[in-house]
Amino acid sequence: MNAPLKPVQGAGDLETAMRVLGRQAREAARALALAAPAQKNRALAAMAKAIRAARSEILAANAEDVAEAKSAGANSAFLDRLTLSSAAVEAMAAGIEVIRKLKDPVGSIMAAWRRPNGMRIERVRVPLGVVGVIYESRPNVTADAGALCLKAGNAVILRGGSESFRSSRAIHAALAAGAVEAGLPAAAIALVPTRDRAAVGLMLSGLDGAIDVLVPRGGKSLVDRVQTESRVPVFAHLEGVCHVYVDRKAKLPMAKAIVLNAKMRRTGVCGAAETLLIDRVGAAKLLKPLIGMLIDAGCEIRGDQSVQAADHRVKPASDADWSTEYLDAIITAGVVDGVDGAIAHIERYGSHHTDAIVTDDKKTAEKFLREVDSAIVLHNASTQFADGGEFGFGAEIGIATGRLHARGPVGVEQLTSFKYRIRGSGQTRP
Amino acid sequence: MNAPLKPVQGAGDLETAMRVLGRQAREAARALALAAPAQKNRALAAMAKAIRAARSEILAANAEDVAEAKSAGANSAFLDRLTLSSAAVEAMAAGIEVIRKLKDPVGSIMAAWRRPNGMRIERVRVPLGVVGVIYESRPNVTADAGALCLKAGNAVILRGGSESFRSSRAIHAALAAGAVEAGLPAAAIALVPTRDRAAVGLMLSGLDGAIDVLVPRGGKSLVDRVQTESRVPVFAHLEGVCHVYVDRKAKLPMAKAIVLNAKMRRTGVCGAAETLLIDRVGAAKLLKPLIGMLIDAGCEIRGDQSVQAADHRVKPASDADWSTEYLDAIITAGVVDGVDGAIAHIERYGSHHTDAIVTDDKKTAEKFLREVDSAIVLHNASTQFADGGEFGFGAEIGIATGRLHARGPVGVEQLTSFKYRIRGSGQTRP
Repeated sequence: MNAPLKPVQGAGDLETAMRVLGRQAREAARALALAAPAQKNRALAAMAKAIRAARSEILAANAEDVAEAKSAGANSAFLDRLTLSSAAVEAMAAGIEVIRKLKDPVGSIMAAWRRPNGMRIERVRVPLGVVGVIYESRPNVTADAGALCLKAGNAVILRGGSESFRSSRAIHAALAAGAVEAGLPAAAIALVPTRDRAAVGLMLSGLDGAIDVLVPRGGKSLVDRVQTESRVPVFAHLEGVCHVYVDRKAKLPMAKAIVLNAKMRRTGVCGAAETLLIDRVGAAKLLKPLIGMLIDAGCEIRGDQSVQAADHRVKPASDADWSTEYLDAIITAGVVDGVDGAIAHIERYGSHHTDAIVTDDKKTAEKFLREVDSAIVLHNASTQFADGGEFGFGAEIGIATGRLHARGPVGVEQLTSFKYRIRGSGQTRP
Repeated sequence: MNAPLKPVQGAGDLETAMRVLGRQAREAARALALAAPAQKNRALAAMAKAIRAARSEILAANAEDVAEAKSAGANSAFLDRLTLSSAAVEAMAAGIEVIRKLKDPVGSIMAAWRRPNGMRIERVRVPLGVVGVIYESRPNVTADAGALCLKAGNAVILRGGSESFRSSRAIHAALAAGAVEAGLPAAAIALVPTRDRAAVGLMLSGLDGAIDVLVPRGGKSLVDRVQTESRVPVFAHLEGVCHVYVDRKAKLPMAKAIVLNAKMRRTGVCGAAETLLIDRVGAAKLLKPLIGMLIDAGCEIRGDQSVQAADHRVKPASDADWSTEYLDAIITAGVVDGVDGAIAHIERYGSHHTDAIVTDDKKTAEKFLREVDSAIVLHNASTQFADGGEFGFGAEIGIATGRLHARGPVGVEQLTSFKYRIRGSGQTRP
């Protein structure tokens, strides 16, 4: 199987090669924008089939990547993320099938109205254009991001981690072959054809306006770099310092279930709770059992003085702890003065990602939902629902905390733009 | 009347002063985001009243600006835009009343659905945050932009042209007084308190993340600079190279009315037609009368060979003419091969702003509406409808040709973001 894009010959050519990649993606975006839903779905079906057919090539390429990373001394968490199995290849193909079955957003009418002069105005969804995805060495992102962008009618330029280059190239070859089989241009799904890290900087420049939006997928340092240096808009979140606030009117069993799930279900996801806030009124009832439960579940607690007083196993919280995303079995815990104290705390220390309140008081809940300025706010539900799949989006390319265009889980709809379509009968403007 | 923000003392302080302005605006944005619709409307009423009450101060300040500009040798078009009259002051106040009466977008539910686990998810409009508006010496933008941003719950930082500084300051003082009268922070509407042009560069940096979006209002060089240098997203259009395509199936009287209106109603607006494309099949019937009509109306025609052959008064079009925004009584005209030729021409030379087709063939019209990738596409209506007021938005801060967040007329809804509000009953994620 040959990658449809020629590899770059010599480092001096990189800038030119990336520009060509950008121009090709821009042209492919035009073809994709006009492709019928059925054609895009045929491409996605062919892509899933091609991934399955290329299983041994993908696993062989991945084995080379893993061997190289091992000999370079990569740690076990890194190797875990890098290593593919037969089941992982099948999961990629199945993921593409899920995306294929999503409703096609392009062409859907978001709003329509008639003007007094008889003109009918429609706001209709169109693709965004060209999406650049910069990710670390998780080869499956190649398939996920490629398929999701194609479903939304966008061309995509993928730039995976250098350590997973061979794996990404093998996966990408299958994706591009699927696109071509359905009559779409290979450049609809482009992979940066080099491990040269300078390619990332060129993508951040936007490639002469060829890239409409960038999506970084990976750790904080990658996201931080993309957000800081990018010349084009970015859909991302830097971190998820998510809070659970347990109000005086919370029922203890529900509070325990939500706090335990929000912190401990998976500690490494961006929707995991990092701070527990407890209402001062009600702390006598709530504090000891919640803290005890978390410690018994293997969670380290870093608390303020009230929390330290509740359980001798609590460590003191430092100033930095209140704004730390642990992504681990650690939580900062403190007592606040009611819902107002909780809101003030979250606005000061939070990251505007996902925050929850547990209470049986509807008015208090509404105040929290209204005043906490985060992409996702929840009442009586776990912060770990911060996920496109859990929203019913079918798939997501990430979660955004920016306020422009996309916010919260970025699914296929958030990967579109719109235009106005006006139908008249000869109207002229007075 | 005193401006509520202290003027900057000494140029060395500019960066610090601008940072303070940004922080104050960010804090004010929080207050505005939580302000009830009635409070914002009270503020807008008070602002309109204060503008009327300050009429003589505003006109006196404006007279000083005009005198200075005159002695600096400003041309008459510039002085026209700069000069305010009693009627212009009244129009500003009336414009604020119009904005006051618009539907408040904040808090409206854009979508709502229930998940299988019983959680109810709502997507609800919230303000964008802080909008920066950079404009040239049209003092009325101070009132228009300030009021529109406030209605959408955003704080705004206004930076008007240096030549209109005194006028803008007088208008701004009235606006801020109105906000304060309704209990909103004066910093909700901030004016950069200096004529120092370095302030623009600082706004383009985003003021340490204090500015969420920038809106340039003015000529091409201003917009170009903002789009090129801004570190934050920009809502703008660089130019409007708008086309009217007259198809073989167009009725001549409708084509004449639309072409005349699109070009000549007002030649200086961004929705004015700059290029006329005529179907080769049908040119024998259409070309002569359309070209003759435009010339008789005082329009200069720069045409391709077919158009030159139709009327001896047509000048030859240069390559550059096809992508020129004249903003004047000049049009480039050419013959194309049907709707496919028109679409290809528009994609090549257009600016993705506003383009129209005139035809009685529904299928041809639908093809044009679907395939022309512009913010606004029209069938059998004039391109001069490219205006928020004509869309029924009540007011607009400009027209955007970008694909992210806002596209087309940017009204009060496009000046908002959204968040997800989830109501559960104890759900945890499996």
